[in-house]
Amino acid sequence: MRIETPLTERLGIRHPIILAPMGTAAGGALARAVTNAGGLGFIGGGYGDAAWIEQQFREAGNTRVGGGFITWSLAEAPQLLDGMLAHKPVAVFLSFGDPRPFAPAIKASGALLVCQVQSRDDCMEALEAGADIVVAQGTEAGGHGARRATMTLVPEIADLLAREAPETLLCAAGGIADGRGLAAALALGAEGVVIGTRFWAAAEALVHPNVQAAGTQATGDDTLRTSSTDIVRERYWPERFNIRVVRNAFTDRWHGKEDELSANRPPETKRVFAAIAAGDPALAPIIAGEALGLIDAVEPAETIVSRIVHEAADILKSSARLVR
Amino acid sequence: MRIETPLTERLGIRHPIILAPMGTAAGGALARAVTNAGGLGFIGGGYGDAAWIEQQFREAGNTRVGGGFITWSLAEAPQLLDGMLAHKPVAVFLSFGDPRPFAPAIKASGALLVCQVQSRDDCMEALEAGADIVVAQGTEAGGHGARRATMTLVPEIADLLAREAPETLLCAAGGIADGRGLAAALALGAEGVVIGTRFWAAAEALVHPNVQAAGTQATGDDTLRTSSTDIVRERYWPERFNIRVVRNAFTDRWHGKEDELSANRPPETKRVFAAIAAGDPALAPIIAGEALGLIDAVEPAETIVSRIVHEAADILKSSARLVR
Repeated sequence: MRIETPLTERLGIRHPIILAPMGTAAGGALARAVTNAGGLGFIGGGYGDAAWIEQQFREAGNTRVGGGFITWSLAEAPQLLDGMLAHKPVAVFLSFGDPRPFAPAIKASGALLVCQVQSRDDCMEALEAGADIVVAQGTEAGGHGARRATMTLVPEIADLLAREAPETLLCAAGGIADGRGLAAALALGAEGVVIGTRFWAAAEALVHPNVQAAGTQATGDDTLRTSSTDIVRERYWPERFNIRVVRNAFTDRWHGKEDELSANRPPETKRVFAAIAAGDPALAPIIAGEALGLIDAVEPAETIVSRIVHEAADILKSSARLVR
Repeated sequence: MRIETPLTERLGIRHPIILAPMGTAAGGALARAVTNAGGLGFIGGGYGDAAWIEQQFREAGNTRVGGGFITWSLAEAPQLLDGMLAHKPVAVFLSFGDPRPFAPAIKASGALLVCQVQSRDDCMEALEAGADIVVAQGTEAGGHGARRATMTLVPEIADLLAREAPETLLCAAGGIADGRGLAAALALGAEGVVIGTRFWAAAEALVHPNVQAAGTQATGDDTLRTSSTDIVRERYWPERFNIRVVRNAFTDRWHGKEDELSANRPPETKRVFAAIAAGDPALAPIIAGEALGLIDAVEPAETIVSRIVHEAADILKSSARLVR
């Protein structure tokens, strides 16, 4: 059994499920597992550690996977792109910044260009770049993002694509963790979904088990968007983006007091990086989204994909019964 | 043709579409039109103007409609409830505050109790109150609301209801303006939808035409959540709620500068109320949600309901084809 959309056809996959290229969490093992389960895995290039990216592509082996970058960060070290393209990724997934400078090299390599957008203006830039797939990401997503919600951004971008670039495919991201979310995304006009948080809680994710455990115990009400997590890690994000994390002792102390945090940075930065290394969920960022409220356990990626697909198929097959 | 769910059965309506009881905008004519189109109309009691509520129920005539209140505001003038119950509303819709003090009188009157919630804790209060219908409202909604997004709040509340109160029905609110949104909400586990913004732009809505025109020209990217609009109107909302409006000259000037606004309140309040009376969309609040990006024109409520239902039916009927 499979769920077939124009996305599965374009990517040559069984199910319209893409692994979000989560920096540090989406490594080669997770990307390989999602592809082997019938979706498409992406390795998260994050802020660009060439050795780490190399290692993760080696880990993925011969499995078809893609790779992702934080676009504004890639602009500071553009040579990382050639390094990734040497691995012949199926697609390159660019998020948070202007994709146009990198599009020619990506397309020339034969990789598909995936652009994540948080607004109509972002989408117009993605189309200028020649995006093959646009990902409309809502604010409920874990990690970095902006203000618009999935429920309205997806159909609004679908209408924009229908008018401006009908051959460009659309995926929904943000808040999708089960078959209900996949079926809803398809109803909204997407041809597939990009899933982060659910795979952040996969057995293959490169996330400390203590941090994963804290995340799976949280509900959707326990997350917030903040800049404090970026300030303390000395990540200088453009102002329109912030990061969704689970509230913990760190955010209770510093969220909303970013100026005071900036003034106290050296010792706080040291404490947070020590907590990340130790897997202490009170101070280490728990980078996941509102969909945590739908997630109770860490499971293998294959189990996750299979359940999402079966749930969605049941919903899709029974929907017609509601119409009399 | 109709879309049938447990909600349509419980309410005795043709389509699972409920008019959000928008204060001042959802009057008797709009409520009547939505009911006559096959949904269920609600008159928005807002901050509680007894004469206005009377007039709107008279305007609705013998049509089956419900009525709504801002719960924390009703607590300041609880006698308004008896006034509304005298009109034998089908249901009373309570939003933003603790519904428990009002539930016994509502249920004793024979009206159904509808409770809008923005979190799991809100939902538990609604269940203690004996809610017949819980409305999970996402942050993309226009007007007042909180932080959670529809895409995750609806399935999370669905799971909570399945465990705690399986007989309680669930509606989705926030970001739903077309058939895609209705179909998506049903996929997420809701039995129906509550629609505000799309009906705010109905011909029957009590909204100044200039303000409606400014709203229909806006996109989803043009709205924001702010407290400035409440401060200037001297509406003292609990801190967890703010209001989604379309950005205009007023929000450009005051959003994020709420302390300065408080210090300048008397003249600014006078200017804003004059703009509301004159229908000046530069200063009057344009109280609508992200779904504006899906709305191009002011239309009669019947046209709106009919199109939503036909679009949703097409999606629901064709969904099974995706499963191979």
